[in-house]
Amino acid sequence: MQVGVLGGGQLGRMLALAGYPLGVRMRLYDTPAESPAQHVAEYRRGPFDRTAEIVEFLRGVDVVTYEFENIPVATVEALEQAGLTVMPPPRALAVSQDRLAEKTLFQSLGIPTPDFSVVRSAQELADRAARTAQILKTRSGGYDGKGQAEVTAAQDAESAWAMLSSMPPAPGCPGLICESRIDFERELSTIAVRGRDGRTAFYPLIENRHERGILRESIAPAETSDALQLQSQEYASRVLDRLNYVGVLTIEWFERGGELLANEIAPRVHNSGHWTIEGAAASQFESHLRAILGLPLGDCAAQGHSRMFNLIGVTPSLPALLAIPGAHVHLYGKSARAGRKLGHVTAWGANRSEAEARGQQVARVIRDAASGN
Amino acid sequence: MQVGVLGGGQLGRMLALAGYPLGVRMRLYDTPAESPAQHVAEYRRGPFDRTAEIVEFLRGVDVVTYEFENIPVATVEALEQAGLTVMPPPRALAVSQDRLAEKTLFQSLGIPTPDFSVVRSAQELADRAARTAQILKTRSGGYDGKGQAEVTAAQDAESAWAMLSSMPPAPGCPGLICESRIDFERELSTIAVRGRDGRTAFYPLIENRHERGILRESIAPAETSDALQLQSQEYASRVLDRLNYVGVLTIEWFERGGELLANEIAPRVHNSGHWTIEGAAASQFESHLRAILGLPLGDCAAQGHSRMFNLIGVTPSLPALLAIPGAHVHLYGKSARAGRKLGHVTAWGANRSEAEARGQQVARVIRDAASGN
Repeated sequence: MQVGVLGGGQLGRMLALAGYPLGVRMRLYDTPAESPAQHVAEYRRGPFDRTAEIVEFLRGVDVVTYEFENIPVATVEALEQAGLTVMPPPRALAVSQDRLAEKTLFQSLGIPTPDFSVVRSAQELADRAARTAQILKTRSGGYDGKGQAEVTAAQDAESAWAMLSSMPPAPGCPGLICESRIDFERELSTIAVRGRDGRTAFYPLIENRHERGILRESIAPAETSDALQLQSQEYASRVLDRLNYVGVLTIEWFERGGELLANEIAPRVHNSGHWTIEGAAASQFESHLRAILGLPLGDCAAQGHSRMFNLIGVTPSLPALLAIPGAHVHLYGKSARAGRKLGHVTAWGANRSEAEARGQQVARVIRDAASGN
Repeated sequence: MQVGVLGGGQLGRMLALAGYPLGVRMRLYDTPAESPAQHVAEYRRGPFDRTAEIVEFLRGVDVVTYEFENIPVATVEALEQAGLTVMPPPRALAVSQDRLAEKTLFQSLGIPTPDFSVVRSAQELADRAARTAQILKTRSGGYDGKGQAEVTAAQDAESAWAMLSSMPPAPGCPGLICESRIDFERELSTIAVRGRDGRTAFYPLIENRHERGILRESIAPAETSDALQLQSQEYASRVLDRLNYVGVLTIEWFERGGELLANEIAPRVHNSGHWTIEGAAASQFESHLRAILGLPLGDCAAQGHSRMFNLIGVTPSLPALLAIPGAHVHLYGKSARAGRKLGHVTAWGANRSEAEARGQQVARVIRDAASGN
């Protein structure tokens, strides 16, 4: 079996590594000269608007998928028109690229979200901010906290508006939206899978800790109630079914007062699901491949407890990490640069306290590297 | 980090896949036009006597290792003379290629083995067979049961002698040896690791079931006593230390009356250790890489219980295998051929009975494929 992948970052790399044991080979296409996937599988470099070249490169694969959501929808549609099968469906990609469409989808499915609104002027923003703190966001684009500005008081509206309204919008997604800032207790995420036959499977809720907009740590399974787990699955099912989705879908949530508020979706495997490589029978990468290839879905229950830490900007001492029992190191083959995700480490434990203790050791090694010790 | 590998079979493939998360890239060298490793990493094809070409291909890697033991020792020695670091040491390779040296090593270390003797004529063989059944073996070569003949009575000696003495011997290993056939209860194996610093780690004893000389099933951990586990580690330590070994070493045992008799060693990762991918914190492949790269050794304790089944000659239905909870499929990317190892499946369970029940499901799918259902 052969799978084409648009995007060749670490997600593509881990998809490729998960494919080999199933007898699946990958062809990955992306723009950078150096890509985490390039040594791991067949890699072609080029811009995403050269659809004829992409079609020629991917001709003959069983299915085409994507590993980041800033692929032009037009590219994916052109591949479909050329007779290639694309999963997840392009509609999911389009929705994930447009915060307005995304929030509107949640709303239409009865899934709670923070209050949101299209804003057309700095004055409108100031009016809303006068009532409650807002987060101004571009309708499209933005990643790891980019394309956002907090507006906690009316007098901040002008500068936030000036900054974000000057960013060039993606085609078809002009304008800005603002969301009421909510005081949430935790950020959670759901990794859900839907097969070609419509069957679904769900990993347990994951707790995510961000710093400066970038995911730092995930705890899986999150310490939570069965009711909240079922609620998350019920909401995720609605999204999966409405989009006639096939593959792995991620939904990020805010938890407030024991309720889930949907923040955003990612139509792909996700950083908060990396723990599944060691912490579940089927990893999110294997699950995605099983789903898009029409194979039976795997077991998504957690096995033991996991704490996943991103390696950002600096790669800590490999011997120090590997000396920690239960620490699993995943490097992405990238050169170091500030703010760049260079790898992750999953601290696995048979129970929550073991995972936590090992996670603390991992966190210490990462801190030492960041402070140059 | 870069590692050179002599051999590009499934063991090389799985070594390469285990390397990527650690940031390790592989260059593999082997003779076949089609090799399981060729799509997974850099692959060069050529005969093993072209040492200058091999040196040129592997120049600059951190360490060179091998993944099957029929590499000419002269090749490995030539790489060392050219300044490349080779681990495990060539001496271990030489010993594993010569059944006489292997048995003599066990004997000199006080490790029990079946009675063995060099035989120089059909008459000598007949004399020994008259006392107790013998297995006649070439001193070198032989794999998966080849290069062996059972001699259960004196009158069988002539034909067995004629057959095996006509096989061309490997350089430096002329002649035949015979071993007294023993009535063992089980076949077991030990996967042991020794680091550059001399530290050792041991996976639990594995029970292996062969058919027609080919491994069919491994059960890990084997159901056995702590005393036998400690005994196996004590024996393995003697071999590791004597050979100043670095990397993963496998020892195959016969179990008779609660005692271990050493059968043979393999200076490499081993088919009976494939369960470690899911069934231990560090797989045998990761352990081997950690050891030869001078990194801390990983945790070799079993997590849960595993049953590993080889896929021989026929690849069963992938959907049928993947529908079994806890079944992990590993295909090697080979074309099907009778007697060929095409992949393996590990049935994992949280406890022995769960692993056994899942293993029975896997075995049924494999049997159905073999019988053409």
